[in-house]
Amino acid sequence: MKWKHKDLLGLKDLTAEEITFVLDQAKSFKEVLQRPIKQVPALRGKTIVNLFYEPSTRTRTSFDTAAKMLGAGTNNLSIANSSVKKGETLIDTVKNLEVMGIAGIVIRHGNAGAPHLVAQNVDIPVINAGDGFNEHPTQGLLDIYTMQEKKGDLKGKQVVIVGDIAHSRVARSNAWGLLKLGAEVTFVAPPTLIPKDVETIGVKTSYDLDAVIGKADIINILRMQLERQQGDVFTPSKREYNKLYGLTAERMRRAKKDVIVLHPGPMNRGVEIDTEVADGPHNVILEQVMNGVAVRMAIIFILLTKGQKKKK
Amino acid sequence: MKWKHKDLLGLKDLTAEEITFVLDQAKSFKEVLQRPIKQVPALRGKTIVNLFYEPSTRTRTSFDTAAKMLGAGTNNLSIANSSVKKGETLIDTVKNLEVMGIAGIVIRHGNAGAPHLVAQNVDIPVINAGDGFNEHPTQGLLDIYTMQEKKGDLKGKQVVIVGDIAHSRVARSNAWGLLKLGAEVTFVAPPTLIPKDVETIGVKTSYDLDAVIGKADIINILRMQLERQQGDVFTPSKREYNKLYGLTAERMRRAKKDVIVLHPGPMNRGVEIDTEVADGPHNVILEQVMNGVAVRMAIIFILLTKGQKKKK
Amino acid sequence: MKWKHKDLLGLKDLTAEEITFVLDQAKSFKEVLQRPIKQVPALRGKTIVNLFYEPSTRTRTSFDTAAKMLGAGTNNLSIANSSVKKGETLIDTVKNLEVMGIAGIVIRHGNAGAPHLVAQNVDIPVINAGDGFNEHPTQGLLDIYTMQEKKGDLKGKQVVIVGDIAHSRVARSNAWGLLKLGAEVTFVAPPTLIPKDVETIGVKTSYDLDAVIGKADIINILRMQLERQQGDVFTPSKREYNKLYGLTAERMRRAKKDVIVLHPGPMNRGVEIDTEVADGPHNVILEQVMNGVAVRMAIIFILLTKGQKKKK
Repeated sequence: MKWKHKDLLGLKDLTAEEITFVLDQAKSFKEVLQRPIKQVPALRGKTIVNLFYEPSTRTRTSFDTAAKMLGAGTNNLSIANSSVKKGETLIDTVKNLEVMGIAGIVIRHGNAGAPHLVAQNVDIPVINAGDGFNEHPTQGLLDIYTMQEKKGDLKGKQVVIVGDIAHSRVARSNAWGLLKLGAEVTFVAPPTLIPKDVETIGVKTSYDLDAVIGKADIINILRMQLERQQGDVFTPSKREYNKLYGLTAERMRRAKKDVIVLHPGPMNRGVEIDTEVADGPHNVILEQVMNGVAVRMAIIFILLTKGQKKKK
Repeated sequence: MKWKHKDLLGLKDLTAEEITFVLDQAKSFKEVLQRPIKQVPALRGKTIVNLFYEPSTRTRTSFDTAAKMLGAGTNNLSIANSSVKKGETLIDTVKNLEVMGIAGIVIRHGNAGAPHLVAQNVDIPVINAGDGFNEHPTQGLLDIYTMQEKKGDLKGKQVVIVGDIAHSRVARSNAWGLLKLGAEVTFVAPPTLIPKDVETIGVKTSYDLDAVIGKADIINILRMQLERQQGDVFTPSKREYNKLYGLTAERMRRAKKDVIVLHPGPMNRGVEIDTEVADGPHNVILEQVMNGVAVRMAIIFILLTKGQKKKK
Repeated sequence: MKWKHKDLLGLKDLTAEEITFVLDQAKSFKEVLQRPIKQVPALRGKTIVNLFYEPSTRTRTSFDTAAKMLGAGTNNLSIANSSVKKGETLIDTVKNLEVMGIAGIVIRHGNAGAPHLVAQNVDIPVINAGDGFNEHPTQGLLDIYTMQEKKGDLKGKQVVIVGDIAHSRVARSNAWGLLKLGAEVTFVAPPTLIPKDVETIGVKTSYDLDAVIGKADIINILRMQLERQQGDVFTPSKREYNKLYGLTAERMRRAKKDVIVLHPGPMNRGVEIDTEVADGPHNVILEQVMNGVAVRMAIIFILLTKGQKKKK
């Protein structure tokens, strides 16, 4: 397959074949991760900038580690009080990085579409590490990688995604990718946390986790974005949320024996997932984290070595 | 030429010959920046510390990138709430870095003279990345590099520097360097933003941009330091400033056809420079950024390989 | 000697033989630090995470430099407002780092015992860079290294440790290590800053620095943790503290001619130590900083190459 994208902005833009191409590449990098020296010199002498306009430990560390394991240098820019304070536009910032000789930009931004704006204005590859409530495509890819690793072909598989759908770029990237690969996706959330129009993209919706948990092959539990919901405006309380939508040990008894449970992290134990489940036999949460490095190595490698460098 | 300085503290201290020596070195590093692998192993195994007491994305990234492209490791210390909070003196901090085996220190500090104090107290090279309202010598060098690249020999060239002269270390470093190379420099600013005594160093001054713009071969627009002027104490308003001193498309019609426009960034579009000009045919702003990496590679390389290591 | 520890959590856990083993290794790395290229490729392709839940410039830079001089990559995570804000547990954070392929974790945490909890939950080496008021073992090791370098065998040597004993993990790690090596340790502090039960571990205590200074072979001055004592609740004032417990030039006249003075930094000059003493002939404070890099190289090297990788 000839890879034709300069950037990775969302799974909405990829075909099933392209998703599979990335995941096959990730598989070979996962083997590298099993070695004592977890490094290949593929990108020696290149520098990747991780440009984060929202705080992140996990995703930034995963991208940073992935780039370093490919032999690249990294520069982590957490923008909160430097150039933003000085009033520079996002486009000026990234054009500057480009002419400095940076080989690729990984960007997280609070505004949906910010990575797309960046991608249109630079010739180097841009990877979306999360934009507002829109997409988080590498999370979608690592989730799908983990599901395939555990469940094989996803065609016809029942995937139940539970939680704060309205504020979740993870849910959206999962849905785009999973639907392309033939899985059936059900979003489960309280009515206040699920947009009315999501069914138009091909997912089913439910307000009742107990009603759908029994059919799930795969459960993907979203994080309650507690820091975005000050005052519990959307849900009555953490305890109430846990009772109705939390993945509790009790509720897991109604699930299939071979169901797998994913969570993008960081987990709020006792809110959207109970500790017995988070650490229990069905969880594949740490596998997700490991696969995340392999998937990010794959996408960085593909874009920097096979990507189309011409401006679209 | 034999290089005789341990540090780069300001352009005031360099001769025309020394400035030319650095810029010639930068030229050869700019060629490295055009290659797919933008790295030379000149400083492998060395570590440079970027010690920033003021926030910066652009300058810090430029220094960080320059050091990495020379094969050096970097350590970025943004000091706001660690050792300063704990009450350690600046001299103790840098002496500690020196004995840890750090090969060179790049320092930005809010107080004029802080890098000089550091340089007197360590034997390793110190590079001033901006000290209060005093100097920002690498910015001066990259501006001069860009001017020479576009305009050739600067002898007799008319350089108009517009903006917040009083708070601008960029204006000062430009003036020192340009005067040594034979250019004629005019500072343009509102009376409140221009110190009375600058004419003693050999520059002309004007309060009227329209009166001098027509003779300029080169216009260097300074950033309005909005974050330093809370409450608009120095100028009536951003809009008023733009009207009187902003480089607008309208005002550019009075300029020479082959004038070039520089800006040290980050730009406040619509304040000191309009978007039509910032992105227009006369601007060399992104060239400045690229040349900044080459110039910083040059000065790091020269100080770490040719510098006098003896304490002055 | 066969090294049998996975982690370095505290000097309380090491034997005299094990301490000596680490210090011997540090000696050979100190030779590396004297070379122009201060790097050995021992850990090429490995990544160390510096996970700091408390601010630090000095210790973090020392660890970062040590890892880089061993050829390892580093990732500095200063946790204040990212995953902690998002509510993730410490154990989840470090398990994630482990599966990402990180080779070792250096952790500083405000809670005593946090590194021990981490060590129990990951198979990779964990190094305590300071946990609450408990231990700071690499500081203890570098202090002991410096004392041995200057004073030879520590058996029977009189070590006086002065300052805020109650809040000092440095005092505790010094005491554990020094007692094992046969030194005699006296803690000196105002009654409010010295716990009653420290004598049970084998140290002597005194409230009167003038009474004990004359017998000291080695004086280790602790930093007044001014940032932890808002409102001077423990001591009447900085000036009063300096008068009673500060190492002043006047007080030093009562000390032995060949006494050495250590301070873990950062120093509050004029509080616990006067500038004449800090920069005077008895101080070995910069030697401590240099030895700190060598000692940290040693412990990282030993744990990553000789450590037991099996979960305890």
